[in-house]
Order: sequence, then structure tokens, then C-alpha cells
Amino acid sequence: MRVDVHATVLNIPESAQLQSRTAVVIDVLRATTTITAALAAGASCVVPLLTPEDAFAMVRAQPGRRFILGGERNSVRIDSFHLGNSPLEYTRERVEGLLLLFTTTNGTRALRRAAPAAELYVACLNNAPAVARRLLAAGRDVALCCAGTKEQFSLEDTLCAGAVLAHMEGQGEALTTCDLGRVALALYREHQGNLLELLTLSEHGQSLLRLGLAEDLAYCAKLGQTELVARLEEGALVV
Amino acid sequence: MRVDVHATVLNIPESAQLQSRTAVVIDVLRATTTITAALAAGASCVVPLLTPEDAFAMVRAQPGRRFILGGERNSVRIDSFHLGNSPLEYTRERVEGLLLLFTTTNGTRALRRAAPAAELYVACLNNAPAVARRLLAAGRDVALCCAGTKEQFSLEDTLCAGAVLAHMEGQGEALTTCDLGRVALALYREHQGNLLELLTLSEHGQSLLRLGLAEDLAYCAKLGQTELVARLEEGALVV
Repeated sequence: MRVDVHATVLNIPESAQLQSRTAVVIDVLRATTTITAALAAGASCVVPLLTPEDAFAMVRAQPGRRFILGGERNSVRIDSFHLGNSPLEYTRERVEGLLLLFTTTNGTRALRRAAPAAELYVACLNNAPAVARRLLAAGRDVALCCAGTKEQFSLEDTLCAGAVLAHMEGQGEALTTCDLGRVALALYREHQGNLLELLTLSEHGQSLLRLGLAEDLAYCAKLGQTELVARLEEGALVV
Repeated sequence: MRVDVHATVLNIPESAQLQSRTAVVIDVLRATTTITAALAAGASCVVPLLTPEDAFAMVRAQPGRRFILGGERNSVRIDSFHLGNSPLEYTRERVEGLLLLFTTTNGTRALRRAAPAAELYVACLNNAPAVARRLLAAGRDVALCCAGTKEQFSLEDTLCAGAVLAHMEGQGEALTTCDLGRVALALYREHQGNLLELLTLSEHGQSLLRLGLAEDLAYCAKLGQTELVARLEEGALVV
């Protein structure tokens, strides 16, 4: 099985290359961690949207329906949105049974770019082992699509790609990978004893710490705490 | 001093972010190695062009002038061009005193993208220590722009970015860098005893080996064999 790793939203391949693959979108800090947490807390589905205006338009178009609006710009909750982009905000009391309209700086762009894949999953450190098992069961070649930060390489997404690769190999699968896959695997193996330390070192981790979000970092660093894997189906992420 | 590393031609920042920086374009296999070799062999300058047609147009526009046309598409010499993209082809007998029109798959695209920088240098492993000294002398913040391979992260360009960073630090300069800078520095430190081994492991290295180009790889892996640093001036690379 071939598993390629793409460094940022800009490096996600075109439709023709994705169509035969399972794609996995990774934005550890914090979009894919939060999407996974929201579904684990009982949200009925998560609709990834590019802009806040897209979310307001959906709300206006269906006046009878109850939505939760969540997301961020530059790590801060969007004006008039119910929730921001912290996985800790998405409690059962707040989201159970509701449809979440969600937009973040990089994560939702990456989901849109990777959407032409045969199947699309969402990964974070919290569900990386479960994603690895799902990819092996699907049996297709894989595109691990890191969102990156501000269109640049990020340590935390590459680390998560490495975690998925390591857990695929751990199931005895013989993988071929690309240059970035080798780096990701080495990064994960070096830091698997203390993932939080690497998140704390990363540029995005540092900027979240400056915003007082140390608890978010600790949550995002927990490897394999859930079996839940979100999957894209007709434009919405579902369990 | 701040030194950022950009993973591929797609990740090179926009003009506004580059204007106050010294940019360095890196395409170890083989564009920037070959450009450096051609100037070391006495070519008067190297004009990077996006397409073979651009080169033919320049030749037609100046019928009295002698040019050398060099470059590749998919690692192979372009039809009607004098030379390909192997640094070993660019001997003194062939290029001394001549103007080289040069086009390659990734390297020349990266040069164009990085051109808005305050100053632009060309780096490869052959001149990485000399580039590091030049950057310290220039004193500006730096953008190390890896060309990458087919718009994806490449081991060899990241390794070279790490070599430049390590030699800057080796001169006692306190640097701040980005997530990819950390990875590049770690990659270089791990492999500095045997750079050829890492080039041989890389995807692009493997494809050159399949084309019988082992000697090119060995040449491209030689760290610090020249003091020559090409610099962009009015659209042409000069010493």
C-alpha cells in the first residue's frame, strides 16, 4: 500500500490524483481535533464551510432548524458564533443532536481540497490509531493531507501523519511512502514518549500558549483516546 | 536573525513578505547545483527561464549572440538544447564566457517566485557553507526556499536548508526559525556524516539512479566544495 504525506493545504494533489485514494485531513491544532470531539459529544454532523458568511447563509436558508455555529479566525471565536475552535468547548450539553456549521482558517480549506478523494477521513492525535485501522480496512492507497499553518509546514500535523503511518506499520502492513512520510515517521518515533512536548515546541503551539490555551494543547496531544473517525458524506462529516 | 524554511515552490511567500528578506533558492537535484557548477566553470551568467519556448525566443531575438541552452523536463535534456541538467556536463570547454539560458521543472519556477526578495542567492550542498556566510554578512532575515519535487516536500532540499542553518549557527549567530527549520536542522545533523546516503534514499535520488545518474548524485552530495554563490541581478544569475 502506498501512503503519501502532503505538507500543507497548498500541496494537496489535484482531483485526478486523489480519486483512487482514501484521503485523510489532519489539522491537530485544532480543527480536526475539535471536529472529532464534537461528533464524540453527540453532534449529529459537522458541515465544514470556508467562510463565516457561508454559515450565516445556511442559517438564513433554514429558519426552522437549530444549528450550532463554531470556528475561528486567527485562533479566536468568530463574532456571533456560539463556539470557537477549542475541543473542550464541545460538550454533550452544548452539541448533542445538533448540526454544527464549522469554519476555521486552514482546516476547512484542507477538507474542501481533499474532498474529491474516493473516501475522506478526519484525523488528529486523539484518533490516529483508529484512523490507521480504518485505512488498512479500506485497502486503497492513501493521501495524508496535513493542513499546515498559514500555508507552511507544521510540526504537529506532520507528527500526526507519522502516528498514522506508525500505527499502519504496527498492524504488519508493508507500506511505501514519500520523502515527507519518512520524515513524519521519524518525527513520531522520536517523540512518541512525549507528544505534548513537541506540540509545545511548535510555532502554532507557542501561539496558542500565548493565548492561554495550554489545556487545549494537552487535550490535542492525547494519542488514541477515541475510536471515533469522522468521514465526509455529501459535504458533511459524520461518524 | 529570523530564518524561515519553505517546503516547496508552492509555499514560497508572496512578494510583500519577501521584500525585506534575503531569499535563497534550493534545488539540490539538480538545478541549483548545476547553476553553481556552470558559473564556476566560467559561464558569464545564467538566465533562468520558465519554458524552452522562452529560450528559443531569446535566441531568435539576438541572432548575432552565442548562447548555451541548458535544462531538462522530467530529468531528461530538452530537444534541441545543447546540455541537460547534469552539473558534470557544464565543463569549462563548453561554457566559458557564454551566456546560459536555463530551464528546469521546478528550479526555475522557484527562482521566479522568490525574485521579489531584497536579494536572492542560489544554494546547493556544494556551496551551503559559503551561502551561510553570505547571509550573515547581508544581515537581513532570510527565506530559505526549497523547490521540492513535483510540488511536494523533498528530503534533499530540506537537508540543504538544514546545512545552511547549521553553518549559520556554527558562526555563532543566534537564529530563530520555523517548524520546518527545526526539522531541517535535525535532518542535517543526523546525516551530516553521510549526505550521499540521504540523497540516495530520497525519491528524486532514486529516480535519478534509475536513469543511471549515480555520478550526479555523488557530485550533488559534496558539501562545501566551492565558495561560489550565484546571485540574481536584473533577471540573470551572476557571481
